[in-house]
Amino acid sequence: MITLHHLEKSRSFRVLWLLEELKETYGLEYQLISYNRNAQNLAPSELLQIHSMGKAPILVDDSLPQGEQVLAESALIIEYLLKFYDNRQQFSPSSAFNAWRDYQFWLHFAEGSLMPPVVMKLILLKAVEKSPFFAKPIVRQVKAGAEKLLLDGNVQKGLQLLEKQLQGKDWLVDEKLTGADIQLYFAAAGAIKIGQLSLADFPNTARWLNNCEQRTAFAKAVELGGKPL
Amino acid sequence: MITLHHLEKSRSFRVLWLLEELKETYGLEYQLISYNRNAQNLAPSELLQIHSMGKAPILVDDSLPQGEQVLAESALIIEYLLKFYDNRQQFSPSSAFNAWRDYQFWLHFAEGSLMPPVVMKLILLKAVEKSPFFAKPIVRQVKAGAEKLLLDGNVQKGLQLLEKQLQGKDWLVDEKLTGADIQLYFAAAGAIKIGQLSLADFPNTARWLNNCEQRTAFAKAVELGGKPL
Repeated sequence: MITLHHLEKSRSFRVLWLLEELKETYGLEYQLISYNRNAQNLAPSELLQIHSMGKAPILVDDSLPQGEQVLAESALIIEYLLKFYDNRQQFSPSSAFNAWRDYQFWLHFAEGSLMPPVVMKLILLKAVEKSPFFAKPIVRQVKAGAEKLLLDGNVQKGLQLLEKQLQGKDWLVDEKLTGADIQLYFAAAGAIKIGQLSLADFPNTARWLNNCEQRTAFAKAVELGGKPL
Repeated sequence: MITLHHLEKSRSFRVLWLLEELKETYGLEYQLISYNRNAQNLAPSELLQIHSMGKAPILVDDSLPQGEQVLAESALIIEYLLKFYDNRQQFSPSSAFNAWRDYQFWLHFAEGSLMPPVVMKLILLKAVEKSPFFAKPIVRQVKAGAEKLLLDGNVQKGLQLLEKQLQGKDWLVDEKLTGADIQLYFAAAGAIKIGQLSLADFPNTARWLNNCEQRTAFAKAVELGGKPL
């Protein structure tokens, strides 16, 4: 049996969504264990008992050998599920070079390029909120400085690249939903929300986000695990 | 011909090192174009002309079709070079499940889990340095708060996981240097340096970092592109 340790409003939404796609397509069964964030808005310490990074997603597959059943890191879990449970390659890229390259690029791009500035913006926003009143103007200035110098430009460039990729396309790769869409959805939707950007400026991305959200499995994942953001 | 657009003290050291390994093993030729950081310590705007993310590494391979020759994202570039130029799988994982899983995990872990808190620490350090004297105490407090709540714990947990993986081992996967070591070296060495951590607390990691640094190709990469950190 597969067990997903899921944290509300986190990257583990990706795995929950993919598990629902695999359930719908192949009848794959899994168990969901959901956790709430703690008072500091972080992953609760229970997750540390499952995997020493203490973050979600964590997938446990008891069909693996004892001592090797616990998997962490969203992209590895997506790759694992596709390799072993996507028997008809419904969510995997075709073997064409362009499909392989684009799939790998967007899979790595999500955490390598898009998530870091988004998460940093969020941390700086929290820092402003938590500062005492006399410190707020200075912390706000640090936030604005980092955003102007580095963060907002990287988010914009990342979303513009995505917008270009999605020109005339419903999905990132091979005209079907793949693991790359699932990995990137959370990052792109997070970038739009935390960046307070208008979807009107990214019409292709808006269409693609909507394609994702219209999936039956996506809706089921929201029903079971809450909205991702 | 392959061309690497390299930025000093950046992730592109990974690709330069791998290209040197491939040159040593297979005689693969490539061209190196090096860039310096600008006055803000960021990638110079020339890189924007090559790839719209404007960051290094960027690999251009003119054996690819016109309009598709430009590759970005360290891990994708490593995967690409291994797929097409590592003909005897010297730097690729074996086909055993454990090797595949560990290789994929550490490849994604480098940017997904270890780099973000390291880069955030660096940004906050720069923010303290650049603040006017009256703001420094407050910015220092924001830095300390984020480090205590989130960043240092994640760096520590990541390095402890790596330390455990390297127990009794010279390399991450398959007892040989693979793309996963190359992807992770930069992140782990950066975590130690920017976290001002003592290698004495991570003896296995210290041995592994040294294994990397002792490679002829690593030394050649330093000679051509400067120290990575």
